[in-house]
Amino acid sequence: MKPLLVQKYGGSSVADAECMRRVADRIRSDYENGNDVVVVVSAMGKSTDKLIALAREVHADPNDREYDQLLSTGEQISISILAMALHHLGVKAVSMTGAQAGIRTDASHTKAKITGIDPVRVREKLDQGHVVIVAGFQGMNPASDVATLGRGGSDLTAVAMAAALKADRCQIFTDVDGVYTADPRVVPNARKLDAIAFDEMLELASLGAKVLQSRSVEFAKKYGVPLEVLTSFERKPGTIVKEISDMEDVLVRGVAADKNQAKVTLRGLQDTPGVAARLFQAVAEAGVNVDIIVQNISEEGHTDISFTVPRDDVADVRECIQNLQGIHFRQDLYDDSIAKVTLVGVGMRSHTGIASRMFQVLASRNINIQMISTSEIRVSVVIDQADSDAACKALHAEFELDKDPIQVSAQEPAP
Amino acid sequence: MKPLLVQKYGGSSVADAECMRRVADRIRSDYENGNDVVVVVSAMGKSTDKLIALAREVHADPNDREYDQLLSTGEQISISILAMALHHLGVKAVSMTGAQAGIRTDASHTKAKITGIDPVRVREKLDQGHVVIVAGFQGMNPASDVATLGRGGSDLTAVAMAAALKADRCQIFTDVDGVYTADPRVVPNARKLDAIAFDEMLELASLGAKVLQSRSVEFAKKYGVPLEVLTSFERKPGTIVKEISDMEDVLVRGVAADKNQAKVTLRGLQDTPGVAARLFQAVAEAGVNVDIIVQNISEEGHTDISFTVPRDDVADVRECIQNLQGIHFRQDLYDDSIAKVTLVGVGMRSHTGIASRMFQVLASRNINIQMISTSEIRVSVVIDQADSDAACKALHAEFELDKDPIQVSAQEPAP
Repeated sequence: MKPLLVQKYGGSSVADAECMRRVADRIRSDYENGNDVVVVVSAMGKSTDKLIALAREVHADPNDREYDQLLSTGEQISISILAMALHHLGVKAVSMTGAQAGIRTDASHTKAKITGIDPVRVREKLDQGHVVIVAGFQGMNPASDVATLGRGGSDLTAVAMAAALKADRCQIFTDVDGVYTADPRVVPNARKLDAIAFDEMLELASLGAKVLQSRSVEFAKKYGVPLEVLTSFERKPGTIVKEISDMEDVLVRGVAADKNQAKVTLRGLQDTPGVAARLFQAVAEAGVNVDIIVQNISEEGHTDISFTVPRDDVADVRECIQNLQGIHFRQDLYDDSIAKVTLVGVGMRSHTGIASRMFQVLASRNINIQMISTSEIRVSVVIDQADSDAACKALHAEFELDKDPIQVSAQEPAP
Repeated sequence: MKPLLVQKYGGSSVADAECMRRVADRIRSDYENGNDVVVVVSAMGKSTDKLIALAREVHADPNDREYDQLLSTGEQISISILAMALHHLGVKAVSMTGAQAGIRTDASHTKAKITGIDPVRVREKLDQGHVVIVAGFQGMNPASDVATLGRGGSDLTAVAMAAALKADRCQIFTDVDGVYTADPRVVPNARKLDAIAFDEMLELASLGAKVLQSRSVEFAKKYGVPLEVLTSFERKPGTIVKEISDMEDVLVRGVAADKNQAKVTLRGLQDTPGVAARLFQAVAEAGVNVDIIVQNISEEGHTDISFTVPRDDVADVRECIQNLQGIHFRQDLYDDSIAKVTLVGVGMRSHTGIASRMFQVLASRNINIQMISTSEIRVSVVIDQADSDAACKALHAEFELDKDPIQVSAQEPAP
């Protein structure tokens, strides 16, 4: 059996005919090197935005089913053009819509979930020596209609297809060349990681790192699909995302900063049972994701609660809080000049002392910690946004992230 | 049962959002007047041309299956946008691709034939009070792939859908407002026909009249689907195309000129059995449609043969003739300054003398007839192109085509 690669190319990688030819050339080389290749593509460049603009010209709030019928054409154009570009290079290739590739979804238009994949046609064409090109972001729902998968849908298509085909690797091509120990724009000696654990990647995705969406990483983790994040603009290895069991336990894999959060504080909140539940239910009903929550010790029946929300949602949260019924508090404060700085590393599971080392480093730089949140493999602190870059640099140096630990274990599958 | 209209709107009728809104408004009015409405749409404006240009950027001669996969997106965009435009007007509407509408085709990509229609979803949605919008020009082939129907495919979709649904009328909206007794640019008092017979329309279509393609008219005739050709830019009745049995037998329905033909003459051709067969087989193998053929009386083992072909094919025919093996002739001549002028009328079946009246009229104008061809309901002559307009005017006057005959019989179905 040949190794099977599933490759996903995003919109910027297939923006025009020139890009299509470059991607086709890359695929050809992997195909000629003896791999079976399934390719998942997004719509070309800004074409989805153009379709949305056209829809808005006739309806301010288009029907979801028709919206999906419309938007799915973007990927259908991509797959056929890429197939033609491969034919031009003499490579056997065939395009498939989500439906043709056997991708079944539930009934929720515009944000459908994949309920199953029956890749019989894909497998048949692979066996005949074709590169199979699958439309990302779409599947067929129980009514035989096109349903789209929502944000990050093409990544999800690739991961799910890789799981269904038991692919050796799912390669996600993006405009960055991998995952780094820190943001290279902030920490100049940040190092590209050869590998990162699914759980670490999930923590980073929830931090707003745009490389991979949580949904795809969770799916890959669940089905044990090794992911690789790499650039389509250069031929070099990216970062592998895989099971922790396949990896060395490093203490700290990387440091990340999220500057798109805001802190909401309710001071002098009545401290009776059920208040917090009602508060956060109301915020959830406003469609706002709360991240860190900190509650102080209660004094004389009152307490302070702080929590972080995406900065874009502050106005919604303010409105929600000011309309709260039956909850009393002295003051509400909103601060959007914060940053959340996070250390991630699966080694934290078995090693203690990471958090305290982190706090010492920040203290030695006179950086005040406003909130703290931890998980098994992560420590996050909320600090003043002005201190964010300095904090990242200091932590990157303290944990020697610029130095290369032994990352890749013996179980690494051949690429 | 409500009357059922199938309406087809071409690319120029749905060129942009503004056009979509106008078409939606027209549909709404027919829907609100108590009709069930199925709408077939083409791709918006020049969008198909843009897709073809994109394909050519990556491959000079794209694979047929991928070409269909690509081109079918144009109609898929149209149907969803039109559905949204109807929703905006408060009309229940649902879009369907060819496959969703149950249109099955054979395996010939880019020029597929409709093999059957199973309009169960269309009927179900009509019964629920929806306007159903079907993508023209496409269907699903036995491999579950999209296949396109070739030129005039959207008209064919509409006619076939009307036949399958036993629609009361199939309305083809174009940029002309009907079929005329002659080209109004040539004959100023040409009259728009209220009705024309299928057979007459077929003769006109083969003359290159671009209103309706032969394929759609043949299909409509076969299944007895009353057609109407009308404009989407104004609200007024067009021309009905229907069975002869429903019509008064008028002697001459109209006069048409085709200036896109050329005449090929072989002089001094050896007159032995099988020569003509070999000549026209060679021309057919070059993919050229021969129209009129005239052969003179043989003299001393030699003859002259003239035939007409589309002017664009003259170079191909010349090459073909010059490569003929084993056929001898003295001279080959090519004349592209001809016109074919045709009188059409089902009444010719039962009346004689039309041809001779035609020849007399032309003779009285000193117009020389180069070739003659007749069918049951048609007389065509090939003349000098410079005489074409004068011939049309003279014939239009001679047969009093500007005057309104009784056209519509008692069997006319209510619109």
